[in-house]
Amino acid sequence: MLDASVIKLAQAVEKKTVERRRDFHKFAESAWTEFRTASIVADTLSSLEYEVLAGDQAIDAAAMMGVPSLQELKKHAERALAQGANPKWVNIMQGGKTGVVGVMRFAKPGPTVALRFDMDANDAVEVQEDSHRPYREGFASVNKDAMHACGHDGHTAVGLAVAEVLAGLKDQLAGTVKLIFQPAEEGVRGAKAMMVKGIVDDVDYLLGMHFGVTLKRVGQVACQTEGFLATTKLDAVFTGAPAHAGAAPENGKNALLAAATASLNLHAISRHSAGASRINVGVMQAGTGRNVVPANALLKLETRGTTSVINEYVYTEAMRIIQTAAAMYDVKVAVTEMGGAAGCGNDAALVERVRQVAERINLFDEFVPAGNIGGSEDCTYFMERVQQHGGQAAYVMVGTELTAGHHDFKFDFNEQALFKAVAFLSSAAADLLAKK
Amino acid sequence: MLDASVIKLAQAVEKKTVERRRDFHKFAESAWTEFRTASIVADTLSSLEYEVLAGDQAIDAAAMMGVPSLQELKKHAERALAQGANPKWVNIMQGGKTGVVGVMRFAKPGPTVALRFDMDANDAVEVQEDSHRPYREGFASVNKDAMHACGHDGHTAVGLAVAEVLAGLKDQLAGTVKLIFQPAEEGVRGAKAMMVKGIVDDVDYLLGMHFGVTLKRVGQVACQTEGFLATTKLDAVFTGAPAHAGAAPENGKNALLAAATASLNLHAISRHSAGASRINVGVMQAGTGRNVVPANALLKLETRGTTSVINEYVYTEAMRIIQTAAAMYDVKVAVTEMGGAAGCGNDAALVERVRQVAERINLFDEFVPAGNIGGSEDCTYFMERVQQHGGQAAYVMVGTELTAGHHDFKFDFNEQALFKAVAFLSSAAADLLAKK
Amino acid sequence: MLDASVIKLAQAVEKKTVERRRDFHKFAESAWTEFRTASIVADTLSSLEYEVLAGDQAIDAAAMMGVPSLQELKKHAERALAQGANPKWVNIMQGGKTGVVGVMRFAKPGPTVALRFDMDANDAVEVQEDSHRPYREGFASVNKDAMHACGHDGHTAVGLAVAEVLAGLKDQLAGTVKLIFQPAEEGVRGAKAMMVKGIVDDVDYLLGMHFGVTLKRVGQVACQTEGFLATTKLDAVFTGAPAHAGAAPENGKNALLAAATASLNLHAISRHSAGASRINVGVMQAGTGRNVVPANALLKLETRGTTSVINEYVYTEAMRIIQTAAAMYDVKVAVTEMGGAAGCGNDAALVERVRQVAERINLFDEFVPAGNIGGSEDCTYFMERVQQHGGQAAYVMVGTELTAGHHDFKFDFNEQALFKAVAFLSSAAADLLAKK
Amino acid sequence: MLDASVIKLAQAVEKKTVERRRDFHKFAESAWTEFRTASIVADTLSSLEYEVLAGDQAIDAAAMMGVPSLQELKKHAERALAQGANPKWVNIMQGGKTGVVGVMRFAKPGPTVALRFDMDANDAVEVQEDSHRPYREGFASVNKDAMHACGHDGHTAVGLAVAEVLAGLKDQLAGTVKLIFQPAEEGVRGAKAMMVKGIVDDVDYLLGMHFGVTLKRVGQVACQTEGFLATTKLDAVFTGAPAHAGAAPENGKNALLAAATASLNLHAISRHSAGASRINVGVMQAGTGRNVVPANALLKLETRGTTSVINEYVYTEAMRIIQTAAAMYDVKVAVTEMGGAAGCGNDAALVERVRQVAERINLFDEFVPAGNIGGSEDCTYFMERVQQHGGQAAYVMVGTELTAGHHDFKFDFNEQALFKAVAFLSSAAADLLAKK
Repeated sequence: MLDASVIKLAQAVEKKTVERRRDFHKFAESAWTEFRTASIVADTLSSLEYEVLAGDQAIDAAAMMGVPSLQELKKHAERALAQGANPKWVNIMQGGKTGVVGVMRFAKPGPTVALRFDMDANDAVEVQEDSHRPYREGFASVNKDAMHACGHDGHTAVGLAVAEVLAGLKDQLAGTVKLIFQPAEEGVRGAKAMMVKGIVDDVDYLLGMHFGVTLKRVGQVACQTEGFLATTKLDAVFTGAPAHAGAAPENGKNALLAAATASLNLHAISRHSAGASRINVGVMQAGTGRNVVPANALLKLETRGTTSVINEYVYTEAMRIIQTAAAMYDVKVAVTEMGGAAGCGNDAALVERVRQVAERINLFDEFVPAGNIGGSEDCTYFMERVQQHGGQAAYVMVGTELTAGHHDFKFDFNEQALFKAVAFLSSAAADLLAKK
Repeated sequence: MLDASVIKLAQAVEKKTVERRRDFHKFAESAWTEFRTASIVADTLSSLEYEVLAGDQAIDAAAMMGVPSLQELKKHAERALAQGANPKWVNIMQGGKTGVVGVMRFAKPGPTVALRFDMDANDAVEVQEDSHRPYREGFASVNKDAMHACGHDGHTAVGLAVAEVLAGLKDQLAGTVKLIFQPAEEGVRGAKAMMVKGIVDDVDYLLGMHFGVTLKRVGQVACQTEGFLATTKLDAVFTGAPAHAGAAPENGKNALLAAATASLNLHAISRHSAGASRINVGVMQAGTGRNVVPANALLKLETRGTTSVINEYVYTEAMRIIQTAAAMYDVKVAVTEMGGAAGCGNDAALVERVRQVAERINLFDEFVPAGNIGGSEDCTYFMERVQQHGGQAAYVMVGTELTAGHHDFKFDFNEQALFKAVAFLSSAAADLLAKK
Repeated sequence: MLDASVIKLAQAVEKKTVERRRDFHKFAESAWTEFRTASIVADTLSSLEYEVLAGDQAIDAAAMMGVPSLQELKKHAERALAQGANPKWVNIMQGGKTGVVGVMRFAKPGPTVALRFDMDANDAVEVQEDSHRPYREGFASVNKDAMHACGHDGHTAVGLAVAEVLAGLKDQLAGTVKLIFQPAEEGVRGAKAMMVKGIVDDVDYLLGMHFGVTLKRVGQVACQTEGFLATTKLDAVFTGAPAHAGAAPENGKNALLAAATASLNLHAISRHSAGASRINVGVMQAGTGRNVVPANALLKLETRGTTSVINEYVYTEAMRIIQTAAAMYDVKVAVTEMGGAAGCGNDAALVERVRQVAERINLFDEFVPAGNIGGSEDCTYFMERVQQHGGQAAYVMVGTELTAGHHDFKFDFNEQALFKAVAFLSSAAADLLAKK
Repeated sequence: MLDASVIKLAQAVEKKTVERRRDFHKFAESAWTEFRTASIVADTLSSLEYEVLAGDQAIDAAAMMGVPSLQELKKHAERALAQGANPKWVNIMQGGKTGVVGVMRFAKPGPTVALRFDMDANDAVEVQEDSHRPYREGFASVNKDAMHACGHDGHTAVGLAVAEVLAGLKDQLAGTVKLIFQPAEEGVRGAKAMMVKGIVDDVDYLLGMHFGVTLKRVGQVACQTEGFLATTKLDAVFTGAPAHAGAAPENGKNALLAAATASLNLHAISRHSAGASRINVGVMQAGTGRNVVPANALLKLETRGTTSVINEYVYTEAMRIIQTAAAMYDVKVAVTEMGGAAGCGNDAALVERVRQVAERINLFDEFVPAGNIGGSEDCTYFMERVQQHGGQAAYVMVGTELTAGHHDFKFDFNEQALFKAVAFLSSAAADLLAKK
């Protein structure tokens, strides 16, 4: 009975959901600068009578990672205002605190169910060709430094539709629903600050969702996603002392060699017998001139592991190697955490329950496994925290045709997936929240 | 008798020499873009009835090192024209072939004497403060990417004055004089192309000259300079293959690790028992993103040695290490020679003769040794070639007060040194060329 | 009916099996020197009317890895003769070709079933204490350089007992049985030479067996073993040129630095996304004197992977790194394969069939999984070859109490496991060979 | 007049000097085990009425470097006794304190003059062939682990002869003479312990002497030796933790990789602009088995420099690199100083005075320069200390034909050099000590 109501309500918002997705797409905002997107989310949730947490209520500022400079944040906030953002929210969100949570407590006591959606665009320039539908139909990004090439515009639109569906079922539900709209998933920078804030500390069931990835057509669904790797993103800045390489090389403190030694030994960190691990020094920039002993070096690196424990092992090894490589060349080093995610474990009971919902609503024709992603997703921070507190978590995928791979400047997806995702997630939440 | 004539002629051009130096300073041009400076040099030499070699007559194009892009050369040629360069010479010098040689053959047979002057400015932005005389007096560089911070403006002005003095003594001289105006001494990039062209193949005596360095006041002179290191400047570009560092790291070909391995092992090249050697990887730039196996890396490095043999040893070791480090990671590497200089040996007989001249003209109050420079100077390529052919060479220094160190954006020097240098070099050349 | 006969026959040889195990234990022989053990195996198989393949008939000499020196082989052959080996077999096995295969072709056509047993002892010195049963009861190793600390004495005794049981059932069986007695499993050196010889090319079903490992008591059984890692064992010998480190270091070719560079970069081989990989440089010995540029270096290393493909990937990377590290220092390098094993995949159908047999004979009270061994076993070479030819393979484990871990000088096991293994393997073979 | 007396006295001991040299040669004793040699030295000095310092009076035990084990010392002391050493001295010298100083204070006050001789043999096995004179004539080493292959047997014999000559001139001399007989020059291990003891703290003039090296025939002499390098000899022992390389590599603490990282980075220590430096990791021994993460590693290395300051620079860099390389792999490291020497500066005034003596006695037909040795000599510790206290020092060489290079197992020299050295050094000492 609830299922039928959900479908009906989802159908009612289907057109609006497409419009919202296109609006978010057109005014794409990248990590920590989602001022306009988050404002619209907050306004919509408010109008649906959700309690809204934003700014310092949703984000622990000290746990924000990889935040742009104040100058850039300011520039983007101004752009958001010019593009219609509500000044009230932009003010609350200043400093990049663009996370939003909508909370609705139903009359009857019951479990707390959270759904998590990410809002940020990629640092990419969208293609300007008629073959690209968003361009052809006039909703390509007007912001030249940002493009939704990972479908988060769709995720956000789905989240608002789910908010509307669940609000419409208010009288039939028990417990509490929390709709989490997260900034800065790209670079796995944003979840930690909301998790540390305590947003999911009281959550019994948490669901995350993504379009596409390994599910290539509308009609496919995965009720769990295995294989997200726990990860930590690090910047290491080495500072030595310059010297003329011909006249007095012994006076230099060579930051380039410190960083090179660190790089080699980082990649030599031992494998872990309990599962897969990864290490990558992706960027090195060192030195100023050919004839000067290099006094500066920057490494951008990441560690990964199939579990948080393995990632922590690699991280600990990496930190020691970076510190000692600097000490070896008598140079200083400062390491900054730029992003992170946990390992992903789906709870079998919740996966099974969600699967039954998906079968029941009869909108999917194929249940596929999703795994061996090899990438990372910081929704895992929420999942891990929920599990640490005795709750259950799962991460689902909803299939859709793609015009190009994720992060490609020609990325677009089949918008029929939007309705399916809204119906699926709303049904799953309603099932968990249904009055007994 | 000749000495007195020289002094008189030098005094006659003293004012013009200061003016020329300031003109060159104002329209500073960096390596291989000295189109205006070289045009003026060529015009002046022509007007003094020197035979002028320029463009392909002065430069072996294949031996030019560290040349800017064609686009940049074109831009600078156009600027030179706008700043008054003679289109005839700019056309001859296209492609950056800005070397000029003035040749005067005297009636009576005799030795061939060459004097070498460098013309290029530094890649620096001149300070704009009243405390800086060139700015205060209106001859600071109007070209924002170039500044004479090493005194080559003075060297060029001295060269033209010497040309005028020697032309004035024409009837009293025997043999041939060659006045070599070299581009691109900064980065030791220009001399090789003129040496390979054969400019000094017939030279019996060659003198090079620099202002300042270790001689800190007007009145000091050094009749030889020891300790220039032979050197080779190299760029190594590694090209591998990218891969997602989480999902398929084994598909990457890691250019960063190849470059890091090269860097460490380059610095581990064994010392040489025959003298000092140097190796410096001054710059490393590698990779594009934290989560991508780095597919590109650039190393900027240099080798040095107290002799050409030692430098050649380090260079040979370095080339093998770079090639094998690339092979180790299955990446490609391309190494480009960006500059070079030979070791410097002064011929004692010539040094002694020049010293007698310096004492005779009585313009210097202190004879100082110059050595342990620790840097490099590509005049050494000319010197080495002259010596290989049985001639003699020496490199002299003329003292002057400096307002800041060489290559500093506040660099300026005491222009009284100009006259002393003109008188000294003209006297030395006249002594070597004097009719017996 | 067959099962009952098997049990009866197995009981008949139980005492003899214990005696044989103790005899092999007392005259322990390590890899490639199992002259006496293999002679007894050959004699026993002959007496049971098996066709016996030995020496060049069982071993491809070119594929033998990690073979002792000719001098050592000779010494051990002489010892074997002194300890009662049959000179005929010792002669056939000279050069260490100590593999033996017993073949029995039954009257009726049918499948070819192979069982594989290993015969070699460890390079260990057995403890001489009364608390150690083999010493107390007089069957501790009398050969001071060899000790059965991995139970291969038991494996060989079981193999001979199985031979006797199956010979006793001759009339009830169809097809062919091959009993493979392999030398040099320690260091995974021996299987390859028998596999390359083609011993298992016609095999339809192959079973390998080990006592203990993760099965800690009599009564436990595992019908498959997961997690053996494919592996390659390599020795790399670098040869450079010495030089006085003070007087002429530039004349040296530094083998130590070549080996150090290889070691670091070997450990930096990228992880593989398809499964676990391993690399270990376990030993490095380089140089002769503190003041001499080191002209020699030895690395002992191993690669591993969960599959042969992954191991091959690590091996290929390792070979390139070793070669280029040598080239980097202009030293020569020779790499020798010292051992190897494939990844282990058990065929589900065979595992299930064997499991039914194990349940039927009712000698085991616990079926346990065996996996995540982390080590290697070269029986996998036989298994992989059988599977490549369309056959099926499995590796079983038979539980037993141990007095100390495998390879410990106090190792001993509960001999009640011998009977259970004989009954189990004989039943399994009889089941596969039973007349239809 | 003194010169003539010296020559006469030197002639008187010539035969005895040859005999002593042959006796020391036959009973060769290597570093810190010169119990017999030193006993004979002490007895001889005593009999000549020198005050004798030995054992703790001559050696600072804490500053002894590279000392054999107590067991080895005991074994060699017993051998010395069996070969005729005086038990009194052997007892005083126990623990390897085999340095001896003979002091004679003349009646009239005057300067303190020291001559230094080294006594130790090499760790070499002398050739047993008739073509080798020591073997043919019966004075080849009877001690199988030691051979005088560097001429220290001659040095010691010369020292005793000089003692006798100067004692014979007692009445004509003023001041004090100190004859220093040093153990353990090989490996530059012994001088420091005597220098630290203060043996040369009161010395005004010090002379060291060596046969041969770059002086290839009797008749040549060098009155100073340039180019000994300051040096430090180090052993670094790394201790990590083993782990099975397949099953649990992450549990290992890899001492081999720590040592490999140290080795590479040690060789990458920057050159010093003030003069030549050297670094050599001559030996690396690490690990126990191919499949075990290596838990141990030993590096034997040395640093050098043309001056003590440069050597100290390399040493300081090296110590930091070793410590941080260990820390990088979380392993422990212990570094032991195994030897050392200072840079060598000869005082021009003393060199000139010694040269005049050498010319005056008319025993040499060629004065040659000695330099660019590239090796090290710990007599430099004495020289440096004397100079630090305001005294003067020089190191002379006396030419001789050699049958093979120093440290060769066929080494022998022309014994005519013995007399020339005795006469030269005695004359020089007498000149410095002559009553005014």
